[in-house]
Amino acid sequence: MAVVVMKFGGTSVANIERIRNAAKHVKREVEAGNSVAVVVSAMAGTTNQLVEWVREASPMHDAREYDAVVATGEQVTAGLLAIVLQGLGISARSWQGWQIPITTSQAHGSARIEAIDGSEILQRFEHGEVAVVTGFQGREPERNRIATLGRGGSDTSAVAVAIALKADLCDIYTDVEGIYTTDPRVVSKARRLNKIAYEEMLEMASLGSKVLQTRSVELAMVHGMRTRVLSSFADPESQQPVRAGMNDYDVGTIVCDEDEILEAQVVSGIAYAKDEAKVTILGVADKPGVAASVFGPLADAAIDVDMIVQNLSSDGMRTDMTFTVQATQLDKALAVINQARGTIDFEEIKSSADVVKVSVIGIGMRSHAGVAAKMFKALSEKNINILAITTSEIKISVLIDSAYAELAVRTLHSVYGLDDD
Amino acid sequence: MAVVVMKFGGTSVANIERIRNAAKHVKREVEAGNSVAVVVSAMAGTTNQLVEWVREASPMHDAREYDAVVATGEQVTAGLLAIVLQGLGISARSWQGWQIPITTSQAHGSARIEAIDGSEILQRFEHGEVAVVTGFQGREPERNRIATLGRGGSDTSAVAVAIALKADLCDIYTDVEGIYTTDPRVVSKARRLNKIAYEEMLEMASLGSKVLQTRSVELAMVHGMRTRVLSSFADPESQQPVRAGMNDYDVGTIVCDEDEILEAQVVSGIAYAKDEAKVTILGVADKPGVAASVFGPLADAAIDVDMIVQNLSSDGMRTDMTFTVQATQLDKALAVINQARGTIDFEEIKSSADVVKVSVIGIGMRSHAGVAAKMFKALSEKNINILAITTSEIKISVLIDSAYAELAVRTLHSVYGLDDD
Repeated sequence: MAVVVMKFGGTSVANIERIRNAAKHVKREVEAGNSVAVVVSAMAGTTNQLVEWVREASPMHDAREYDAVVATGEQVTAGLLAIVLQGLGISARSWQGWQIPITTSQAHGSARIEAIDGSEILQRFEHGEVAVVTGFQGREPERNRIATLGRGGSDTSAVAVAIALKADLCDIYTDVEGIYTTDPRVVSKARRLNKIAYEEMLEMASLGSKVLQTRSVELAMVHGMRTRVLSSFADPESQQPVRAGMNDYDVGTIVCDEDEILEAQVVSGIAYAKDEAKVTILGVADKPGVAASVFGPLADAAIDVDMIVQNLSSDGMRTDMTFTVQATQLDKALAVINQARGTIDFEEIKSSADVVKVSVIGIGMRSHAGVAAKMFKALSEKNINILAITTSEIKISVLIDSAYAELAVRTLHSVYGLDDD
Repeated sequence: MAVVVMKFGGTSVANIERIRNAAKHVKREVEAGNSVAVVVSAMAGTTNQLVEWVREASPMHDAREYDAVVATGEQVTAGLLAIVLQGLGISARSWQGWQIPITTSQAHGSARIEAIDGSEILQRFEHGEVAVVTGFQGREPERNRIATLGRGGSDTSAVAVAIALKADLCDIYTDVEGIYTTDPRVVSKARRLNKIAYEEMLEMASLGSKVLQTRSVELAMVHGMRTRVLSSFADPESQQPVRAGMNDYDVGTIVCDEDEILEAQVVSGIAYAKDEAKVTILGVADKPGVAASVFGPLADAAIDVDMIVQNLSSDGMRTDMTFTVQATQLDKALAVINQARGTIDFEEIKSSADVVKVSVIGIGMRSHAGVAAKMFKALSEKNINILAITTSEIKISVLIDSAYAELAVRTLHSVYGLDDD
């Protein structure tokens, strides 16, 4: 008998029919003898409607009231799923964050979960009752108000509930079948990974493979909570139920400790992010403190700078400096730099949003040399020019012209042996 | 400075524009120096959508889950109104039933309010903060769950909150301008009453003038909470604010103790109810216990019987018996009677839904004789046949053919001197 947390996202509970489908997944686990807590998002579209009303009410709104309004979406889904489960003969009740309670910080709209008291839910497990928990929210104790975790926070709710209940597995049901070696829409030979390490998943998530909220992966990593991504649209009946101690499943991708991944690939996946923009400052005075004069004002303006390249100065007087920012922040970044022109001392500024960041990710990189060299060689053979490079322990990223994005991803996917046969 | 509770129904908060209008009414009271608690319903249409989802989820649903789902409607309105008020520069916060708390019984879907702790709201009044309270709901302490009061329960919430806060006035903002001597759609000379006694209002409400929920009037009567019905669509700025100790207002109708109504009319209003149906059992054996044999099975089937007429038997053997039920329960009532045919012993059963109950209501009746005689004479002069009669201390009701409904109401309105000049 296992303890399982099952999380269903907005598209998986978009209407009563889909809620019925989700309930069938729950039924399978209950019938296998498992204790089940379900974490639900709002029905797809609901949160947007609520947010729209709040914006209409006032563009500058109190975050506490915003939370009181938008938290209702999950409350509706939780009640409806409990009703559908009861209709299938399963004992179930809905739990709002304040009832459990799930205690959060006071940062309304982006609160952090601080504690979950799972005792009553665990007690009811003994009578076979399924707990249906509202995702995305909790109660901040100081003012006794509902606080939400920010968009996508239901993933984090699910992992936190799983940790509180000491679950064997935290299953995140979504509209994709798992984590792929790369985007299957770009590379038809992309393969679903059976397992991926927490750290790889973090790099994937932060690079635009937005299957799991980053914070949920961090939380799972810290507490070693094995978290599976799988499709809610697969046939609920034919699927294996969760079993305590079982390591491998037919469906989905398990995000887990790297020790569990016995034969780790050197590279697990190729990610790309289209939302970067490149800024090049030409003819910057090459003197101490110039980097601070550029990046200080950007930081003050809350603009995240990702990659940075500073060319060697040929004459020791002037040099060029290139960096990337989120495309949505490009205009703001250019304005900040132009405003600081006097202190920076440069000749010209150029920018482009026609760039893409392509990354190879893999924990195997730590113990294998030559991964970067292989990447540069492969791109060079396709005449793809590298505009900037950054690396971490388990990731190498390059910035290239966006026209070459698909070619680069396909090439690297093949070069690192990720193609499906 | 007065303490005012202001309740806005579903049509008064149907969209953000109307919520803004409601906020202007609140602003007027705040600017007059009043302490204000607002009780809100769900935006018109929202509760129906939520109920529809619940029905779709399962026709036989858990009332606790139904409550968890439908209670969200008021939570949305409360948050939005608080945001709009803040946008007008007014300090405000939303309160859900469980946060105050409003403690209820465990009868989910039709719970009764058992206690309200108004202490924190009163404390915040000292800092000028407006409390925006979700109507229709509270928390039942046994299982720590949300319980709703049943449709229309927000009126009761408002009166209960007003009692807890020792309010000077409980203002119920709705889509009519007050309580009229009769339905203005039927009698163009109908007048708005400045005041009406609790008991008269109870008779009005139970007879189909559905402006206030019956339970809210009962509660107001027991606690002597003066409750005003007024329109939310009137210009918020030109209206008088509430003042402590003030007895008469330009707008609305105050439901209050009869002692406050100095020159009570003998008759205050003419009500009519179209949703009655008449059943006549012909040739019933005229023997002891026959009434029990008819009305026992009806009571067991939860069918409310309103008027009852038993003719005198001419031969001491068989008689006729007429009674009325809600039109929606007619088919069920006929089935029950036919099933009990053996024990009742009757010859024939007839029924008609083409009947209407017309009532004259007035606390002045207690001290004036001849009110009924005047009614019967007036109807007789118009050749309107009376099918059944019931009376109470402050009400006389007659059942007539529905074809004569408007004629009867207009005639009585004139006969009792209620016509507007």
